[in-house]
Amino acid sequence: MMYSPEEKRFLRCQLPRLEGLVEERLRLTPACHALDHTQRVRRAAAKLAGLEGADPLLLDYAALLHDIGRAQELADQGKTCHAELGAEISRQILAELGIENAGFVDAVCDCVRQHRFRRRGQAGPQSLEAKVLYDADKLDSLGAIGLARAFHFAGRIGAKVHNSAELAMNSKSYSSEDSAYREYLVKLRRLPEKMLTENGRKMGRRRLLLMQQFFDSLNLECLGADLLD
Amino acid sequence: MMYSPEEKRFLRCQLPRLEGLVEERLRLTPACHALDHTQRVRRAAAKLAGLEGADPLLLDYAALLHDIGRAQELADQGKTCHAELGAEISRQILAELGIENAGFVDAVCDCVRQHRFRRRGQAGPQSLEAKVLYDADKLDSLGAIGLARAFHFAGRIGAKVHNSAELAMNSKSYSSEDSAYREYLVKLRRLPEKMLTENGRKMGRRRLLLMQQFFDSLNLECLGADLLD
Repeated sequence: MMYSPEEKRFLRCQLPRLEGLVEERLRLTPACHALDHTQRVRRAAAKLAGLEGADPLLLDYAALLHDIGRAQELADQGKTCHAELGAEISRQILAELGIENAGFVDAVCDCVRQHRFRRRGQAGPQSLEAKVLYDADKLDSLGAIGLARAFHFAGRIGAKVHNSAELAMNSKSYSSEDSAYREYLVKLRRLPEKMLTENGRKMGRRRLLLMQQFFDSLNLECLGADLLD
Repeated sequence: MMYSPEEKRFLRCQLPRLEGLVEERLRLTPACHALDHTQRVRRAAAKLAGLEGADPLLLDYAALLHDIGRAQELADQGKTCHAELGAEISRQILAELGIENAGFVDAVCDCVRQHRFRRRGQAGPQSLEAKVLYDADKLDSLGAIGLARAFHFAGRIGAKVHNSAELAMNSKSYSSEDSAYREYLVKLRRLPEKMLTENGRKMGRRRLLLMQQFFDSLNLECLGADLLD
């Protein structure tokens, strides 16, 4: 993105107002997607932006706004697509902030809209910034934080603490037989290979290794096999 | 415990009926203390019994029955002490099963009553079997399974996914600012030193190490500090 020095200064000076607006809106969002998730995605996006040569200012905006439509999707149990809605809300918020650079606004909204790309015939993230945001968001579902969120989510929906791989694979999401392990087996362990930047994939693989080791330990402990003989 | 060969055979052959009764009653208990917790405690108690020279048959009964009063305590938000109530219910169930050995019945009920010993002026577990059950129950709050249960519980009560050590230490249990990390800092990390058998302490320390490493990783990830530079 090309900015004049004045534009860049203005965009930077509006960031604290944007943070305040995002914080306000995310109060309604359950813990797994609350403000701290957005803050972690923002930090990961900043690191990835540096490594991939993406626009860090654009990513600051896009990361802060990426889950701005999430509360609505959770409230109507998935009828709303939070990425689509988020792009619309983002456009309103950027207008409220007085940001007139149409290229910048379009690019931010594109990142927000594409961060939930699921490869169902969609083109998916095209710009480098949209790819970085996508990967930064996925990173927060991996590693220790990914485990913490998956078990927390299982507790919130009344699913099991743990089950066997066989039972996990035969259970349905959001059911009482669901578990963090099902989420891992069905979805999370495939995330690194779905990432869109080389550095994202590398970071993702490292976090995935921690998850694999954790579930290996958990499975041993559930049999008492880690205990002394 | 001294048994005649006939008594031992009878006690063993009543175990499947006891398992059925326990399974039935634990259907009402939320995931963190459901049947699979009892099954894990039973396995850990069997291992510890072997190492400590405790009575494995008595511990089979005591472990199966240890949380039999838990649903009631959770239903009335802690007014009932599940260990006290559990000892009473255990006595009824053992009578239903036709177990007449008064020494055995007393010893099982004693284990169930004492497994929740919290050192508030109580004498606490005195028999070796009561000590083994106490340690086996604590082991299930440590390690990967302890982490899984702590995050699952945080999700169920609407607490945070994670917070800083400072925020964790200043939050209250069951509040929206509560977290698995608070539970770890305030309670779980002290469990191994509170254990009552040498082998329990050893196993507990190993599981605690896994938790420490997990929270170290989680804290790094929350800062993005594990990501490549």
